Amino acid sequence: MKLLVVNQRAFPVMASPLGLRFIASKACLRCYSSSALKWEGGVSMVQGASRGIGLEFVKQLLEKNEKGHVVATCRNPDVASGLLHLKNRYAERLSILPLDLTIESTIEASAKSIRERFGSLNLLINASGILSIPDVLQPETTLTKVEKSSLLLAYEINAVGPIVEIKHMWPLLKIGGGSGTERDVAVVANLSARVGSIGDNHLGGWHSYRSSKTALNQLTKTVSVEFARRKDPIICILLHPGTVDTDLSRPFQRNVPEGKLFTKEFSVQKLLGIINNAKKHDNGKFFAWDGQEIPW
Amino acid sequence: MKLLVVNQRAFPVMASPLGLRFIASKACLRCYSSSALKWEGGVSMVQGASRGIGLEFVKQLLEKNEKGHVVATCRNPDVASGLLHLKNRYAERLSILPLDLTIESTIEASAKSIRERFGSLNLLINASGILSIPDVLQPETTLTKVEKSSLLLAYEINAVGPIVEIKHMWPLLKIGGGSGTERDVAVVANLSARVGSIGDNHLGGWHSYRSSKTALNQLTKTVSVEFARRKDPIICILLHPGTVDTDLSRPFQRNVPEGKLFTKEFSVQKLLGIINNAKKHDNGKFFAWDGQEIPW
Repeated sequence: MKLLVVNQRAFPVMASPLGLRFIASKACLRCYSSSALKWEGGVSMVQGASRGIGLEFVKQLLEKNEKGHVVATCRNPDVASGLLHLKNRYAERLSILPLDLTIESTIEASAKSIRERFGSLNLLINASGILSIPDVLQPETTLTKVEKSSLLLAYEINAVGPIVEIKHMWPLLKIGGGSGTERDVAVVANLSARVGSIGDNHLGGWHSYRSSKTALNQLTKTVSVEFARRKDPIICILLHPGTVDTDLSRPFQRNVPEGKLFTKEFSVQKLLGIINNAKKHDNGKFFAWDGQEIPW
Repeated sequence: MKLLVVNQRAFPVMASPLGLRFIASKACLRCYSSSALKWEGGVSMVQGASRGIGLEFVKQLLEKNEKGHVVATCRNPDVASGLLHLKNRYAERLSILPLDLTIESTIEASAKSIRERFGSLNLLINASGILSIPDVLQPETTLTKVEKSSLLLAYEINAVGPIVEIKHMWPLLKIGGGSGTERDVAVVANLSARVGSIGDNHLGGWHSYRSSKTALNQLTKTVSVEFARRKDPIICILLHPGTVDTDLSRPFQRNVPEGKLFTKEFSVQKLLGIINNAKKHDNGKFFAWDGQEIPW
């Protein structure tokens, strides 16, 4: 019989009638509510997983954690070829759900689906983000190009969406905590960006993107304060992935210094290292890919 | 003949046929474009001037600067009794214009009106702000109460509005600079709040208000960087007025420590001191009412 260590105690792991692994020990069920079936390797959710950094997170979470389950969400799973490719290889351990951050009912539906399938979450990575959309949103090079519609659109997707999503996943993260993982806590990791730092803003421009990421930083910090006050087994962190060679950064890579344009494999490997080693005292902090804290 | 000192040079001041004072010197007209008629005492604009801190700014600007002109804007001047009362007393030096921050055409109309009447601006104070609206917006006490509509509404009014307004007033501020005032520069003063500081966020809650003010801080900093790079004679500063006894704070005054609830007279006196003494190196900074810098 395999043993799963939860909070420094060992529990037997058995195959369920549904072919799913869960902890059958009564001792465990006393520790956690009956709905809190603990998953060996943990349950991770990656929002914005169809491409770029999000897709790479899904890939590395599946590759590096032989037991963990991953819930990948994106707006339109039917055309998410990268995810469908991974699904072929990791059928049992990868779930793909439709989720559009701008439509709250799709967030609620995802939460319901995860609750029914797993009953808990140990990691939530918000990897989506918009910087430019042809004919809709362009990073502003000057104040004269700032438009209300751009400011609101970037805010809705980059700041509002992740926070509304955390609201709905909160009960699942509270149940999950660090159980099944090597951490003491569940982690909410929001992808921010160094340009969201006010103290580090020496170049100006990119008003819509910058201010949406700054607001995301404040909202994440605000949520982290509440999690700590309630003594929930959850921490929130903000991550700057560096400038990564993805669709998002492609139109703006011209001025990236030599050696500073990272592959998504490299960046995600670094970010997962930060996530996996995260401790309670990291709650509410803003880390760059190399683990350095970024000023607000 | 009276003399007006502009950039350490003295110019004669004469009454115009319209009864308005302007500088007739050819030397001055060479220094500035022909539309840049300089106004003794400067031209100040206060946005959000119908009550509270905004109205008090208008009052003190008129009282303490015997020559300066003030443009006060609010959504509905017809019912702005405080402003109408001041208009009775300072007829010539006070202009009242309708401006709704959420309707860009009203901002453009105000800019046009100021350009035609004065040709320049020396001070722009954004004093409006929303924290709570009965049945519409309530400061959130927990994440479960966070709603997308509240986040977007606070952002639109507290962050987007002031920046779109600065965009339209920029040409007037560039012409105005510090001329006619005791400063070297025109000042954009955005009313922020200490709860917009991420580094100082130890209490959590108030998600919509907090993140909108944090975004305003980032947007103001971003604009300040561009003004500096272009060597425009304008600086932007952010001001925390303290907790002031106004309609905005009234529902939340219960927990304010003794002696920490300021009258609007006291707070505005302090803030005007900061504005009047502002120098180029203050550009992009965030000051509390007592002149202390607040961390981002």
